Amino acid sequence: MAENGTVEEFLAIAVDAAKRAGEIIRKGFYQTKHVEHKGQVDLVTETDKACEDLIFNHLKQKLPNHKFIGEETTAAFGVTELTDEPTWIVDPLDGTTNFVHGFPFVCVSIGLTIGKVPTVGVVYNPIMDELFTGIHGKGAFLNGNPIKGEIIYSIILSLFRMENRTIDLKGFLVEFCFAVSSQSELVKSLLSTEAGTKRDKATLDATTNRINSLLYKVRSIRMSGSCALNLCGIACGRLDLFYELGFGGPWDVAGGAVIVKEAGGVIFDPSGKDFDITSQRVAASNPLLKDAFIEALQQSE
Amino acid sequence: MAENGTVEEFLAIAVDAAKRAGEIIRKGFYQTKHVEHKGQVDLVTETDKACEDLIFNHLKQKLPNHKFIGEETTAAFGVTELTDEPTWIVDPLDGTTNFVHGFPFVCVSIGLTIGKVPTVGVVYNPIMDELFTGIHGKGAFLNGNPIKGEIIYSIILSLFRMENRTIDLKGFLVEFCFAVSSQSELVKSLLSTEAGTKRDKATLDATTNRINSLLYKVRSIRMSGSCALNLCGIACGRLDLFYELGFGGPWDVAGGAVIVKEAGGVIFDPSGKDFDITSQRVAASNPLLKDAFIEALQQSE
Repeated sequence: MAENGTVEEFLAIAVDAAKRAGEIIRKGFYQTKHVEHKGQVDLVTETDKACEDLIFNHLKQKLPNHKFIGEETTAAFGVTELTDEPTWIVDPLDGTTNFVHGFPFVCVSIGLTIGKVPTVGVVYNPIMDELFTGIHGKGAFLNGNPIKGEIIYSIILSLFRMENRTIDLKGFLVEFCFAVSSQSELVKSLLSTEAGTKRDKATLDATTNRINSLLYKVRSIRMSGSCALNLCGIACGRLDLFYELGFGGPWDVAGGAVIVKEAGGVIFDPSGKDFDITSQRVAASNPLLKDAFIEALQQSE
Repeated sequence: MAENGTVEEFLAIAVDAAKRAGEIIRKGFYQTKHVEHKGQVDLVTETDKACEDLIFNHLKQKLPNHKFIGEETTAAFGVTELTDEPTWIVDPLDGTTNFVHGFPFVCVSIGLTIGKVPTVGVVYNPIMDELFTGIHGKGAFLNGNPIKGEIIYSIILSLFRMENRTIDLKGFLVEFCFAVSSQSELVKSLLSTEAGTKRDKATLDATTNRINSLLYKVRSIRMSGSCALNLCGIACGRLDLFYELGFGGPWDVAGGAVIVKEAGGVIFDPSGKDFDITSQRVAASNPLLKDAFIEALQQSE
């Protein structure tokens, strides 16, 4: 295991940082409507910077030997190469457009790679107060509840059936309602993607042609403006399919990748190849939909 | 004024009905993951039907002389013509796909027209516990807070400036953060629309071509799967622009129309003509963006 502690300790430190940064975001979220438009941009930059400083200072103080990659730092000082060393990859404010507009899908995304493998993930939406966490090989959680509830639910329900008893499961279901989706048919699946920020004709035409092609095959489409939260949507079964091409960088996916996998989902390159955290390309689903989704994505090119 | 009471009384009755139906939706929302796929459809139908029954029984008991139009009733018994009489138009569960998938944009939508004018509106999202209300000529509210907060804020800020004092407005801002957006430039605007349910080639091509054309002109796009909540997003400034063509019926817009107008927004036909509640076509924005939005919509055809 890595220096300085256990992965559980690393997660606890990251959660602490995410919650503190989340408080800054929450305050800014309710101020954006009341600043001049020039000031809105400043507020985003200020919030982004304040959150990244807070998170990095917190992590560096506790884990001085770890490496760090952040969206803001990269913008200022260029790309830091991902090595095998324990590396924290941070998007202090994912969903900046939502933040400016007061649309409630914003989050802090923190991921730790060890040997380039996403190992710890924290995604925190301070507006909806949803904290997604995951540790490689040790499960994913939403606000402390395991995101594999369906399995637990099924086991308990089977036990009750064996004893020929009935049970009012409402309260139980509320506790354990989160799991990667069990959908196996594209046509019944809810797809999520984003329009991205590039507005050149080639990219935009490719984006909408892809959506057009996929809409024939799925139930409907959602665009909610946060890559990290889309990954968490896959993890907890709110979304069945997600892909995005050309997003900002590894900070958008480093936290969510662990959470998806630990929830029983799969994360891969939209071409069907292995997921590469540095490629700015991602797709995710439950395992049942993966092959059909890749085929649909290939046909949409 | 209409029979049986004041519009304030009508609103209170509708809010009561929406909150009770919301409780049914909230319970169902956390169960959808745990029923067989065949059963999911049943759960939607059951929830939809139970909510419509509850709302109509509640309204009919209190307001026996009013007329009623509901999505479920229309599906079963055909279209009821909208007359000048006080008529309640109800979507007991807007966002059924979201409901099935556990995506948190679902709501009850209740509107009252008098003389065909949307007069009372209630849109309640029981998952996020957000209650939007409006009365024609008497303002719009989110969870009891006026959705014209920006104006109040500006007045108070001006008063403080006049006295050359400063004030920590954070707490105050949280109270009064809701208002129709003050954005005046398309290029900085957040657009919302939906992919609809039709999957014939002509409709789908028109849908994605329109999105393609508009994406050159706006900041980004959101699709969150509830027409009524999109209207409320315009009302409280989370979204700048919204249009949808070919949605289900007047129940999708009857509640939201009042809320948008009372928040200082405008609602109109995407062609630029007057809004017609029965036309299954809607666009909404703040007044500053209306002309540019209509022009962009016309160019997208």
